[in-house]
Amino acid sequence: MRFACAAVAALMTCTALPALAETPNRAQLAASVKGSHDANLKRLQDWIANPTIAAEKTNVDGGAEYMRKRLLDAGFQQARVVKTDGVPGVFATLDAGAPTTLGIYFMYDVKQYDPKEWSSPPLEGRLVDRAEGKAIVGRGAVNQKGPETAFLAALHAFKDTGRKLPVNIVLVAEGEEEIASPHFRQIVSDPEAAAALKKTIGVIIPGAGQESNGATSIDLGAKGVIEVQLISSGEHWGRGPAKDVHSSLKANLDSPAWRLVKALNTLVAEDGQTPAIDGWFDNVKPLTARQKELIAAGVKNSSETDIMKQLGIKHWYKDEDFLTASYRLASQPTVNIEGLVSGYTGPGGKTVLPGRAEAKMDFRLVPDMTREEAEAKLKAHLAKRGFGDIVVNVSGGYSPTETDENSVLVKSQIASLKKAKVDYSLNPRLAGSWPGVTFTGPPLKRPAVGFGLGTGGGAHAPDEWYLIDSKNPKVAGLDESAMFYVDYLYELAEAAKR
Amino acid sequence: MRFACAAVAALMTCTALPALAETPNRAQLAASVKGSHDANLKRLQDWIANPTIAAEKTNVDGGAEYMRKRLLDAGFQQARVVKTDGVPGVFATLDAGAPTTLGIYFMYDVKQYDPKEWSSPPLEGRLVDRAEGKAIVGRGAVNQKGPETAFLAALHAFKDTGRKLPVNIVLVAEGEEEIASPHFRQIVSDPEAAAALKKTIGVIIPGAGQESNGATSIDLGAKGVIEVQLISSGEHWGRGPAKDVHSSLKANLDSPAWRLVKALNTLVAEDGQTPAIDGWFDNVKPLTARQKELIAAGVKNSSETDIMKQLGIKHWYKDEDFLTASYRLASQPTVNIEGLVSGYTGPGGKTVLPGRAEAKMDFRLVPDMTREEAEAKLKAHLAKRGFGDIVVNVSGGYSPTETDENSVLVKSQIASLKKAKVDYSLNPRLAGSWPGVTFTGPPLKRPAVGFGLGTGGGAHAPDEWYLIDSKNPKVAGLDESAMFYVDYLYELAEAAKR
Repeated sequence: MRFACAAVAALMTCTALPALAETPNRAQLAASVKGSHDANLKRLQDWIANPTIAAEKTNVDGGAEYMRKRLLDAGFQQARVVKTDGVPGVFATLDAGAPTTLGIYFMYDVKQYDPKEWSSPPLEGRLVDRAEGKAIVGRGAVNQKGPETAFLAALHAFKDTGRKLPVNIVLVAEGEEEIASPHFRQIVSDPEAAAALKKTIGVIIPGAGQESNGATSIDLGAKGVIEVQLISSGEHWGRGPAKDVHSSLKANLDSPAWRLVKALNTLVAEDGQTPAIDGWFDNVKPLTARQKELIAAGVKNSSETDIMKQLGIKHWYKDEDFLTASYRLASQPTVNIEGLVSGYTGPGGKTVLPGRAEAKMDFRLVPDMTREEAEAKLKAHLAKRGFGDIVVNVSGGYSPTETDENSVLVKSQIASLKKAKVDYSLNPRLAGSWPGVTFTGPPLKRPAVGFGLGTGGGAHAPDEWYLIDSKNPKVAGLDESAMFYVDYLYELAEAAKR
Repeated sequence: MRFACAAVAALMTCTALPALAETPNRAQLAASVKGSHDANLKRLQDWIANPTIAAEKTNVDGGAEYMRKRLLDAGFQQARVVKTDGVPGVFATLDAGAPTTLGIYFMYDVKQYDPKEWSSPPLEGRLVDRAEGKAIVGRGAVNQKGPETAFLAALHAFKDTGRKLPVNIVLVAEGEEEIASPHFRQIVSDPEAAAALKKTIGVIIPGAGQESNGATSIDLGAKGVIEVQLISSGEHWGRGPAKDVHSSLKANLDSPAWRLVKALNTLVAEDGQTPAIDGWFDNVKPLTARQKELIAAGVKNSSETDIMKQLGIKHWYKDEDFLTASYRLASQPTVNIEGLVSGYTGPGGKTVLPGRAEAKMDFRLVPDMTREEAEAKLKAHLAKRGFGDIVVNVSGGYSPTETDENSVLVKSQIASLKKAKVDYSLNPRLAGSWPGVTFTGPPLKRPAVGFGLGTGGGAHAPDEWYLIDSKNPKVAGLDESAMFYVDYLYELAEAAKR
């Protein structure tokens, strides 16, 4: 669900930093990564062929077991499936006897896909030639199996060369990221996992967000989210039909579809934008001066025209200028309709009065809103207006996340990027969401950010891809991404000592 | 699209009427119908196997040609496909040299179906045993290929016995009834068809609406309808995304789905029921005393409990009593949502901001509202509120229809029912719709009503059925329905002479 938006990222110039660590045995490790290129690619293809889709309950148990074996194969000494009330997670540890421990977050699930929309089969992991170089095409390629494979490739290099890692690793993986992580809290609350995570200096999620000029960003925060299905039905309401009936009966029957429209109508202002849920803004914290500074720097270095073209839009909301729109993107909570489903949905019309209507929604939350607050306020708002019969099914969600740019985790990341001569930006807040609050919030309160080189596209869309062999020396392919993680682990170990 | 609702039908007691005509050669004609039972059933099965579905553009040309051949086979001397801007129609004449000419309306199209929902294949026309007797199951069985087959079976009997019909027949058939007859006017405006229809004493649509006690109704009128797709899209609006984008962008992008919700919200009152479109009630004519009398009589003879159970409802709108709800059903125009479609429609959720949202709607019209008025007022209402970008696609429709109970057509129908000892009711207005106004309105201004014996169910639903061999002597099967049409044609010929 992560979504990198260059519009809110600030491109930084390099400033003086402490001396950088050197990676011991780098040539040997690099040779191992290179020698395992085909094996790592094969691992990625095999993983893509093995998708878990939580929304469709596809490969729910198989996906976790597959993840577990994959981790053991990469050098984790223990890896265990953690049962939840939903799709199971995986908890694994790699103890290198090091003083510092790094947390890693994986998602092993992928988004739904429709093979008809793809130019090559979504589970085949076919290699295609792109302007960027040779890329793998498949569901999950960039979100997140590709970047995760690059991280595991780094671990394979340590294992294959018999080298010890400079840090210990604690990894937690979930299979429900794409449905807003409804049970991830259960995974990190597993007593052993909780104890292990407590030892970490912070948590990273492998990512691949390099732009075509090689620049990347460190996302210091992300909005929270609740995903909700609002369901109006005659069966639950006790009024109107319990199933679809002939539409001529509308004259003396109540309509669950109209009821949903009337309820939805109360959730946003007349322009269909500003949330109108009672008390929704009570805990909304304005952007800090530093956050606005970072956003303004990002806007300065971005092309509004390119972004608009890419999104297929002509105007920002209210025709605001790019900077104002970018402040809004980072600072405002949203009430979004993801989908509407009721009655007849085929071509043309069909004269039915539907017995059921559903709005699929997501609500993005900014600090200091919480997931619990949002659910409670939404339900109270509807109940107060007499819509208590509308089922509010919260299928997933979590509070916003924020990490301090002055934490050791972020400082070591910055150091690694500088060493690799990669331009970077600090993004105060993703408009998208990831369950970082599970780490940054109580009880753990650790820094947690996405991190990595490489590139790809088409997350949640057809023809999702991840770059394997790069034509551009500024953009990492699979091997360079793996080696960047190798370097980073040493950098972190050194930074933690200071 | 016809919908018989016993709740608004008045069961009449027999009163004195002129002496009834006798059917000449009845025994011979009845023997012919009986001898052709298997052939007529085979014709119905073959027709069911050959569906035309206008909404899906299925079998558009084949269906009309099939209809044409079927009419020639039944004894029409000429039958011709009439091209339209949509699905073609058929115009046919059977000249018996009689002084009186009867108009017949056929629909040869059927509603969409999903084979997965059926207990036997929807195009197979399988015979099944029901409480009522042996019935054929298939899409179009009762709506309207079964009743139409019964009418054609009557004509086959005349042809097979070499007997002349007592009246001439002018038949018009359309293939777009299920999408609200958008081009039927073009068929009846064909110069030859128009001239032929002008000679008719009135028009009937074969039907099969006998209840389990054998009672049937004569529907003197029906609401008009417009079927409309309201489409809000970024592409047409010029705001928000032109295609689905990641939902995190909601903060600074307009939403076509929210826009549709806001526009829909203006169309009905807060309770989701009363139309709130500007000027919508300007031409709504209240029920006459006679119409209320007929409705009240119908309510007296109906079981509210049975009807509620059948519809799966517990309350009428506003918890009105059955009589008030029945007045409302007949007298009020409706604004109905048939379906909602936007963005992600699968299980659970998907974090998209949809580029398009569609409401499928139907608006039922009562006298003296017109189809043209309704379309114009809907568009003006939306435009006045700034929703001029929302596409209003009127996919079909027509004005309400009314026929005088004192017309020769209705009087002869009543006489036939009395002769057949069938209890009957007069229903002042169907809550559903059929394009009778094409005949009852200008320029033709002829009486037009549905008529026939027999029974069936599941129109627009899975397992649609039509009774072939009845166990109940009070309810007609295929052969009895055909013979009833034979008798009726003589009755009409006699009545027209008086």
